[in-house]
Amino acid sequence: MRKTSARLADGREIIYFDESDGARRELHDHRDLPERAPGSELRRDPLTREWVVVAAHRQGRTHLPPSDQCPLCPSTGDRRTEVPSADYDVVAFENRFPSLSGDEGRCEVLCFSSDHDTSLAELGPRRVRTIVDAWADRSAALAERPGIEQVYCFENRGPEIGVTLHHPHGQIYALPFVTPRTATVLASARAHREETGGDLFEDVLAAERKGPRVVLENEHWTAFVPEAARWPVEVHVYPHRAVPDLPSLDDAERDAFAELYSALLGRCDRLFDGPLPYISAWHQAPVRDAEARDLSRLRLELFSVRRAAAKLKYLAGTESGMGVFINDIAPETTAQRLREAAP
Amino acid sequence: MRKTSARLADGREIIYFDESDGARRELHDHRDLPERAPGSELRRDPLTREWVVVAAHRQGRTHLPPSDQCPLCPSTGDRRTEVPSADYDVVAFENRFPSLSGDEGRCEVLCFSSDHDTSLAELGPRRVRTIVDAWADRSAALAERPGIEQVYCFENRGPEIGVTLHHPHGQIYALPFVTPRTATVLASARAHREETGGDLFEDVLAAERKGPRVVLENEHWTAFVPEAARWPVEVHVYPHRAVPDLPSLDDAERDAFAELYSALLGRCDRLFDGPLPYISAWHQAPVRDAEARDLSRLRLELFSVRRAAAKLKYLAGTESGMGVFINDIAPETTAQRLREAAP
Repeated sequence: MRKTSARLADGREIIYFDESDGARRELHDHRDLPERAPGSELRRDPLTREWVVVAAHRQGRTHLPPSDQCPLCPSTGDRRTEVPSADYDVVAFENRFPSLSGDEGRCEVLCFSSDHDTSLAELGPRRVRTIVDAWADRSAALAERPGIEQVYCFENRGPEIGVTLHHPHGQIYALPFVTPRTATVLASARAHREETGGDLFEDVLAAERKGPRVVLENEHWTAFVPEAARWPVEVHVYPHRAVPDLPSLDDAERDAFAELYSALLGRCDRLFDGPLPYISAWHQAPVRDAEARDLSRLRLELFSVRRAAAKLKYLAGTESGMGVFINDIAPETTAQRLREAAP
Repeated sequence: MRKTSARLADGREIIYFDESDGARRELHDHRDLPERAPGSELRRDPLTREWVVVAAHRQGRTHLPPSDQCPLCPSTGDRRTEVPSADYDVVAFENRFPSLSGDEGRCEVLCFSSDHDTSLAELGPRRVRTIVDAWADRSAALAERPGIEQVYCFENRGPEIGVTLHHPHGQIYALPFVTPRTATVLASARAHREETGGDLFEDVLAAERKGPRVVLENEHWTAFVPEAARWPVEVHVYPHRAVPDLPSLDDAERDAFAELYSALLGRCDRLFDGPLPYISAWHQAPVRDAEARDLSRLRLELFSVRRAAAKLKYLAGTESGMGVFINDIAPETTAQRLREAAP
């Protein structure tokens, strides 16, 4: 893999990850860009002691542009986009409308392909492997920035969950705090260790590997629908080796993940008519806290709001008001359907 | 207020709350109903130690029926609905497709009016007062059922958040556990008391009453946009007297709430073109735990996914994946807009 870094016209960083060592990328951004948007504000909710990001400048961000105005496509002729080069394999750059910036963190966009009309599911294992390397590279680099406590790589896919740009891409957030979900799960892992002496994730993985909810597995990874799935489609992907984060994965594990994840996304898109809207979230250990790193295990959690071909799950009063999730589909049923959705 | 109880054809309880003491309601349900749906299943998520409800029987529930098939309208002629009577003011009954039932709790529907085409905002303070009495009555009754730990009264309003029945109504859940949000807030209240000796809610209310985010207030209540609002529209309504739950409110407080809440909902509907989709959630103290009751304070939290006339906020990777909320509207701006949305 060849890595090339440059700066965009307003000073933002851009990093190309190319599969061919011979790739040459345009490093100069010919646009005349306005100054970068002002930073957002972190506020701590006294009722929950959790951080909320107030990002008032984002209200005017680009919203579902037509494909000939896509800012994530390569630059061609007079049409200058966020990516100065005329082609790329995988590219990361700082978000022009970031939720977090400056001392408060950093938001990057990770484009999975220069092809506007493809999807991660269609790109295949070779490209997914390049993307894993990009995730790992950015996770390691962002972890070194002052004040960063956690790096979060994720993909929002589909207009049903509010995606504002169709071009296949994910996002990477470098956060100045440990997220509420991570804190909750770490508390469970700590309590589990105190109560049983065991590792929570090891014990969950061992139980699920023997159970009825495995979807796919190979030498290094298992994908399963968790016993208490909150979403009508929900799959967790655990590495068999206990590692805290993406940079810790070795070559064999990265290749095996690429194979399994490509197959999993294909199955997801065969569940209903048309592409499955989903959120795919990498859970990595906090970057600084040694006890938290010792308690954590890397895993991916993918879930969807789609509960039938024409029906979505909405987060309403029970979920958004109280944090109580009601799942209308038994997790065993979802696992069975995903197993049956073979190519 | 006149209260009348009866049973529906399949054994479910129905309770009329009528404003006229002379109201007479049809007590016999003439329908031939199938047996009630099987119960759902509670599963504990090992990663969060939170309960998830698996309610596979609900997948086929009534979904946006045309108004001449609305199950919440009164029964007329040959058309028999969930409400046997030909008219009603406010009526509560057990949900035919409950998320929780039997030993696992109870779900009730609370119809705000027999008029299919009105809304709580339009009904005015007199009716809201009757609804407060119904909430308080049901909260007290459900709290006495074995195994119930918390009673949750809420309203989901608008197809934008997945409401499946247009008829103006709310829901009441009697839960066999303390909800995740309540547990989180109680932990904050406990920590606040240990750190400062003060009461969290009293201190938040006092600070907000002096600040720039008050929307409406009267002798007994203050409505404000919280400092760390998660949603583009979010208003919390606190009673000035520290009470744990709805049954503890006195007459003057109930009347004053009815006035303030009617005015607040009117302002919400004037914010954008058309009715505001919202979730309105009563936070009551857990019913059994004395320490939790002592730490708790009744309050209402109303919030909306609408962030502009034609834009919704979606919960995507940061919110649903990690619990990190990004609010594109400054809370002070929302408070200002709500103050300006006077009749």
